[in-house]
Amino acid sequence: MLIEGDLKMKTESNISMNVIRRLPKYHRLLGTLQEEGISKVSSKDISDITGFTASQIRQDFNTFGGFGKQGYGYDVESLKEQIGKILGLDNFHKAIIVGAGHLGQAIANHSGFRSHFLDIQGIFDIDKEKFGLDVSGMKVKDENEMEDFIKKNNIEIAILCTPKNVAVDLTERLISFGIAGIWNFAPIQLQFDESEVVIENVNLTESLYVLSYLINEEE
Amino acid sequence: MLIEGDLKMKTESNISMNVIRRLPKYHRLLGTLQEEGISKVSSKDISDITGFTASQIRQDFNTFGGFGKQGYGYDVESLKEQIGKILGLDNFHKAIIVGAGHLGQAIANHSGFRSHFLDIQGIFDIDKEKFGLDVSGMKVKDENEMEDFIKKNNIEIAILCTPKNVAVDLTERLISFGIAGIWNFAPIQLQFDESEVVIENVNLTESLYVLSYLINEEE
Repeated sequence: MLIEGDLKMKTESNISMNVIRRLPKYHRLLGTLQEEGISKVSSKDISDITGFTASQIRQDFNTFGGFGKQGYGYDVESLKEQIGKILGLDNFHKAIIVGAGHLGQAIANHSGFRSHFLDIQGIFDIDKEKFGLDVSGMKVKDENEMEDFIKKNNIEIAILCTPKNVAVDLTERLISFGIAGIWNFAPIQLQFDESEVVIENVNLTESLYVLSYLINEEE
Repeated sequence: MLIEGDLKMKTESNISMNVIRRLPKYHRLLGTLQEEGISKVSSKDISDITGFTASQIRQDFNTFGGFGKQGYGYDVESLKEQIGKILGLDNFHKAIIVGAGHLGQAIANHSGFRSHFLDIQGIFDIDKEKFGLDVSGMKVKDENEMEDFIKKNNIEIAILCTPKNVAVDLTERLISFGIAGIWNFAPIQLQFDESEVVIENVNLTESLYVLSYLINEEE
């Protein structure tokens, strides 16, 4: 019984997706601590804030080589920097948006992504009427020009903002053009072998269900 | 050292947010099993697919009263139904969208949410030029009409799709109008006391960082 996609158990390097999904949370927490002028933090402190057990936190950090000595606490700045490196945040990732509808335009206009190491260099659509439209300083281009654009500009990430019925075909084309990762906003769970492409499915339903739970609990 | 918001440790009922965030994953997995015609599942099976430990899975289920007998496996359909009830999915949640920009329109047009128990009844903006615009069969209304609309239609959820600079003020107004939950897409981590309103911040940065990690790992 094997279900691929977001529910898969391990990545290629055999590190559990659950560990990996905790890393951005540690990174964000450490950023907040830094802003508050806090320079040392223990696994117990991190446990109190996140609800992960202290032993799980130490185990997570050890998975990546350990970042401190038990009993001495962690240095906030250096821990954040090291987790950032593991997350690949020391480099910008070049990206394109595929699909210049409302969602694609919303993402192009999103103020925060550039500061999070995402460098969106182009936006593409299949609809002639959208060609040349200005979106956040970029002109919408014909999807037929994607291959050249991706290869010429060493684009790593495609942000998929299309209807679901074209998402699988487009992903196959993007793989053949050399794209390394897909950030999928199309409302479909894309499932490809990790040796072909890595896919992060944005699952808004899970977020909606958490809200539903919390509202229910209040009633 | 207390940091509020998404990183907070416990909900009012003292159930860890980590448990709650696993529930939609169980629900989705059980739906997939159902589609595949599988009627029984063990915590070991669920562990193999999700990477959560079998004991954690059993503990999660026990938190909500236990759904089966150890050694006998769980009935997929009934487990899904019970988790759905805990998530409040046996009722539609009435919602409005606040902010009729690209993101608000993208969410209004999203094909999947209605099937996930979200009933979007109105869309509001502050920009006169948008008033009356048709978005997915709804006319964009003036934000000044929100209070009446929310009270008259018993709206529970506001989906916040505004720039970040107005998000806090709007949340305060929405609380005073009786909104129970905010699904926040504005690029800011909203932090309110849970006794006032429950907030689910959609944190796209975490998702982006996971993609960044996976791409890095491949290189």
